[in-house]
Amino acid sequence: MIDTNKEKSEALSGPRKLQLALEETRDCVQKTLKESDPVLSDVMGYLADSDGKQIRAALLLAAAADDQGEVSHDAVMAAAALEILHLATLVHDDIIDDAPTRRGRPSVQEKFGKKTAVISGDYLFSVSFSLVAGLSVQFPRHINLFTRAISDLCRGELSQHRHNRDTDLSVLSYLRIIAGKTAALFTLALYAGAMLRGDDEQQCRQMGRIGYQIGILFQLIDDCLDYEETPATLRKSTKHDLSEGVITLPLIYAMQKKPDLKKLVGREMLTADDFHMVISDVMRLGGLRHARQISDKYYRKACFLLEQTAPPLRRALIRSLLDQIHSRRH
Amino acid sequence: MIDTNKEKSEALSGPRKLQLALEETRDCVQKTLKESDPVLSDVMGYLADSDGKQIRAALLLAAAADDQGEVSHDAVMAAAALEILHLATLVHDDIIDDAPTRRGRPSVQEKFGKKTAVISGDYLFSVSFSLVAGLSVQFPRHINLFTRAISDLCRGELSQHRHNRDTDLSVLSYLRIIAGKTAALFTLALYAGAMLRGDDEQQCRQMGRIGYQIGILFQLIDDCLDYEETPATLRKSTKHDLSEGVITLPLIYAMQKKPDLKKLVGREMLTADDFHMVISDVMRLGGLRHARQISDKYYRKACFLLEQTAPPLRRALIRSLLDQIHSRRH
Repeated sequence: MIDTNKEKSEALSGPRKLQLALEETRDCVQKTLKESDPVLSDVMGYLADSDGKQIRAALLLAAAADDQGEVSHDAVMAAAALEILHLATLVHDDIIDDAPTRRGRPSVQEKFGKKTAVISGDYLFSVSFSLVAGLSVQFPRHINLFTRAISDLCRGELSQHRHNRDTDLSVLSYLRIIAGKTAALFTLALYAGAMLRGDDEQQCRQMGRIGYQIGILFQLIDDCLDYEETPATLRKSTKHDLSEGVITLPLIYAMQKKPDLKKLVGREMLTADDFHMVISDVMRLGGLRHARQISDKYYRKACFLLEQTAPPLRRALIRSLLDQIHSRRH
Repeated sequence: MIDTNKEKSEALSGPRKLQLALEETRDCVQKTLKESDPVLSDVMGYLADSDGKQIRAALLLAAAADDQGEVSHDAVMAAAALEILHLATLVHDDIIDDAPTRRGRPSVQEKFGKKTAVISGDYLFSVSFSLVAGLSVQFPRHINLFTRAISDLCRGELSQHRHNRDTDLSVLSYLRIIAGKTAALFTLALYAGAMLRGDDEQQCRQMGRIGYQIGILFQLIDDCLDYEETPATLRKSTKHDLSEGVITLPLIYAMQKKPDLKKLVGREMLTADDFHMVISDVMRLGGLRHARQISDKYYRKACFLLEQTAPPLRRALIRSLLDQIHSRRH
């Protein structure tokens, strides 16, 4: 009982420290982007002003927290590097998906053009690596974590692109795609955080595994929300996985129940009525409910692994972020 | 006299060692690309089979050569990392320029699509950084060299893109563009080579300066060749700087002589006759001759700096590569 109370009280004092480190991370990201070469300053300024949730940075910082809930300057720098790496992937993703918006504003490719978006993403990769090179400790291992995450990401993105409109996409292939495109950076977040805290290799790996579960959970919830948030009267211009040919778990389950749906989903151009029918079928056939059940499994697995390993305060910090992700409604 | 003879004989034995290291570099690049994840293997295999001149790798290896003309394993790895970084920029450049061909074959964006090209370039960046992270010495400084080169490159590329069809582009702005888009990797090549050889900071910088001159020379000659190699009957589909709206030095000089040319050059779509007129004007007005004179100045500057600094054998190795670049005819 005493331990539990102590854990709770530390968790209460912890988040403030984490909050401060998160603000420092945001400042570091903004400062780094705004100090870019004048040629790049308009795009970088535009990106610096976009307000991300910084969930990956928060996870890295939580994993790097010591027993007093404090994180080092190195952890803040690594968290900033991770957010900038994430930003680089978003800028390039938007080219790949032809996405008109990002974080509620026009995407870089929409506002500045595809060519500028290619260059800006490359620039952000180099900025991210410079920050990692500036860390004072365990340097090559950090770079390796970052490069491995990027190659996993590329693998996931390319695989998703190749399975575009693939109505026979299996659950396993879908999970492999999101393991790359999303879970890779979450794995990196917890692994790097643990490494900066001074954990041994085995602990770092265990933290990486927790990050992996959280990453899959994050993407599953994202994919469910995409169907849940869809307005009743869907305009064709609305950004939706389906309109980009991206097949996700709720739809895979619905197509398993009603194979006829595949003909509709596989069409190059879907009318508003087509969209409406697919989306209501995904609801009606239990595709969403089933996908939510799977996401709950990943949530429980993450909780289980977390209970097994991390020291109390860090456990509470990560658990709090995990719960936020799990209960996300938009 | 004895010294000069010794220098010559060492230069003769040197290139063989350099040649071997270059072959090892090519093997390393091919092996690294062919060992990629299966999802990426078709694109990476395609890139591995494309035959680059490896001039940047050769310069790095020459700068890293010891007094017996031998280079370390680290230097081979760094040269491979540099070639893969160069490859990444080519893949992304081809998206930016809508280029249908590269190294005599369809470009990645033409063969596999723009989206795959974006992802493949990102993947190559991560592969390049992994190789740098695998070097055994002076690690953060190497990463910093690579990241600085990438940001210079991005600055140059973006600046070139923004000055597309800018008929008022000044000589200075043009030089700034090519300093980024081309000289950055040549600077990196000689700087990193010197660092791997164990040169002190001042020597490394001096070598970097030589690399810069060679890089500008390389691009100037490239830009001249683009006008010299143009077939008499130019088809609109022929890849030419002008058809992509890229304004280079021979044209800048020609437009200075005949400002009326600007109206023609600034047009969105040029007919075959337009092309023909611009190209013959660039010849007739001495634009090409003038640009060649400028390239000679950079050649002499590089020779001068080289004479001042590098030890005999290394000097001979770099000089040989410099002469190849200077006398390039295709």
